[in-house]
Amino acid sequence: MSLLIVGSVALDSIQTPLGKVAETLGGSATYASLAARVFTTPRLVAVVGRDFPPRYRRLLAQEGVDLDGFVQAPGKTFRWQGRYGYDLNVAETLGVQLNVFQHFAPQLPDGWSATPCAFLGNIDPELQLRVRRQLTRPRLVACDSMNFWIAGKRRALLKVLKVVDLLFLNDAEARQLTGESHLGRVAKALLRCGPSIVVIKKGEHGALLASPTALFSLPGYVVDDVHDPTGAGDSFAGAMMGFLASQRGRTWRWDAMKRAMIYGAAVASLTIEAFGTARLVEATRALVERRVAALRRLTHWQ
Amino acid sequence: MSLLIVGSVALDSIQTPLGKVAETLGGSATYASLAARVFTTPRLVAVVGRDFPPRYRRLLAQEGVDLDGFVQAPGKTFRWQGRYGYDLNVAETLGVQLNVFQHFAPQLPDGWSATPCAFLGNIDPELQLRVRRQLTRPRLVACDSMNFWIAGKRRALLKVLKVVDLLFLNDAEARQLTGESHLGRVAKALLRCGPSIVVIKKGEHGALLASPTALFSLPGYVVDDVHDPTGAGDSFAGAMMGFLASQRGRTWRWDAMKRAMIYGAAVASLTIEAFGTARLVEATRALVERRVAALRRLTHWQ
Repeated sequence: MSLLIVGSVALDSIQTPLGKVAETLGGSATYASLAARVFTTPRLVAVVGRDFPPRYRRLLAQEGVDLDGFVQAPGKTFRWQGRYGYDLNVAETLGVQLNVFQHFAPQLPDGWSATPCAFLGNIDPELQLRVRRQLTRPRLVACDSMNFWIAGKRRALLKVLKVVDLLFLNDAEARQLTGESHLGRVAKALLRCGPSIVVIKKGEHGALLASPTALFSLPGYVVDDVHDPTGAGDSFAGAMMGFLASQRGRTWRWDAMKRAMIYGAAVASLTIEAFGTARLVEATRALVERRVAALRRLTHWQ
Repeated sequence: MSLLIVGSVALDSIQTPLGKVAETLGGSATYASLAARVFTTPRLVAVVGRDFPPRYRRLLAQEGVDLDGFVQAPGKTFRWQGRYGYDLNVAETLGVQLNVFQHFAPQLPDGWSATPCAFLGNIDPELQLRVRRQLTRPRLVACDSMNFWIAGKRRALLKVLKVVDLLFLNDAEARQLTGESHLGRVAKALLRCGPSIVVIKKGEHGALLASPTALFSLPGYVVDDVHDPTGAGDSFAGAMMGFLASQRGRTWRWDAMKRAMIYGAAVASLTIEAFGTARLVEATRALVERRVAALRRLTHWQ
C-alpha cells in the first residue's frame, strides 16, 4: 500500500560541531518521504516556492516519491536555520522564514483521498484535521506535532488525537502535552487522548512504543559519529509508517508495530551519519537490514 | 566470592512529587550493599556518627551485610537533603552536612584486603586510591564518581581509572569527564583512561555497557510510578558487582557482563518504587528474577 505524507519541504542551513551546510533539502515531509520510500511509495503533499532548486525535485522523483501532490507556488520556499552544540539532542533555531508554507492549504489530488495509510507530519493541527477529513478509507493514520502547537493550538491538536491511530511525539513534547514526567505515565495519558498506539521518540536514547496493554522499549543505535541530527525523528516516523504500509493484511499486530519501530530506528540512525539527506538517500533495503542486524547485536541479551 | 564496598552511609531527607521522608537510611554504600546482598555477601567499609539509629545498623546486619568495616565515630552522621521536581532524573541538593564523613579514612579490617571484588563508591578519588592500594589480590575492581570530583580532583580521579577494571558514571558525568557529547565517543574516551569495561548509566533511559570491542545497550525498565529515584545508580552498580562477585571462575566474559548489567537494571527499578531503601530491602532473588523477566518482555524483539 502507498503512504500519504503531509508536511514541510524546506531549505535548511545547519551547523553542528562536525561542520555546516547551507540551503540543503530539508523539512519533515522530505525526511519522512525519503525514509518511507525504502519500503513503499510515498505520496507527498507539500508546497515549495518558485525558487525551489529543480535538482531537489528531481531527486525526490528519482527516489520514487510520488509528486502529484507537490505544489510549487508563487513566492519563496520555507527556510530553517539551526545549530546543534555540545548536546546534539537539542536544536537551537537561529531563524525561520515560513514563506509559501505560511499559506499551505493541503489538498489531496484526485484518487489520493482513498490512500489507506497516512502520516500527518508536524504542521498546524487544523491542517492535519483538514487532511484527515479528506481521507475516505483510512486504515492507519499517524501524526506528529511539536511544542509550538502543543502550547498554541492545544484544542485543535487534541481533536487530531481523537481521529488518528498512531501518535509520534518526542519525550519533551509528550511531557509538555500530558503534564506527566515519568514516561510510563506519559504514555498512558497520551493513549487516553485517542490514539491506540503511541511512539515516544527519545533521540539518542531510542524510543518507547505503547499500546493500552503493552510496552516495547528500544535503545538508540550507537553510531560512530553524529554529523547532523536534523530529520532523525521524521526519518524514524517515515520509515516506521512506510514499513507498516508495506505490510499485507487489514490490521497490524503488536509484533508488526515492534518490527516497524525497529526499522524506524535503523533508518534514523543512518540519517544522522551525514548532513541533511545525504546519507538517507543512500538507504536501500539491504543497507537498512544490515543496520537492523547491528541494532540486534547492540541490544540482544544472548 | 564476597564483595568489598566502600562509600557513604547517610541519613537522607528527600522530597519528590509523590511524597517526602526525613532522615531515612541512605548513602551510596548503603544502596550498593543492599543491592549486592541479593547475590553475595557485601563487606561494607563506611563511617557513621554516634547518632546513627541502631535500627539501621540492625537492618544492615539482618540483611546479611558484613559490618566488620563499619565504624561508628564521635560526631554526627553524614546528612543529605534533596528534592526531585518534574524531571525525576535530576536531584536538587538542598543541603549537605558531611559531619564524620569529612574525616573518613577507610581502613580495611584484617583479612578484607584479600577480597577479590571491590566497588569503590562515589567518594574522594584519593580515598578510592587508598583503598585500591590495600587490596592484595584484586580480580575485579570497580569505581563510581561524580561531577564534584571530576571538576575538583580530576588528576586523582584519572589515577583511579588506571587501576580499576570497571568504571560506572552517569551520562552527564561521563560527558563532563571526556568533553565528548555522543555516547559512542564518550565510551571510547573513557576506555582509553584505563578501565576495560565502562558502564554509562542513563537514569530512566537505561545504561550502555562498553568494552574496547563491543557495546550493549539496555533501556530502563518502565515502572508504574517512580516514588524516589535516590540510590538508583548505586543499587544498579551494587547489584551488577554483586552478581559478578557471585559468579565462579577467574574471568568474566562479555556475556556475564551483560547479564550483570541486566540484574543491575532490575534491582535499580525496584529501588525507585518506594522512598529510600523501603523497596530495595524487599528485593529477593526471586523478586529480582521476575523483574528481569518483565524487562525481557519490555525489550525483546520477538
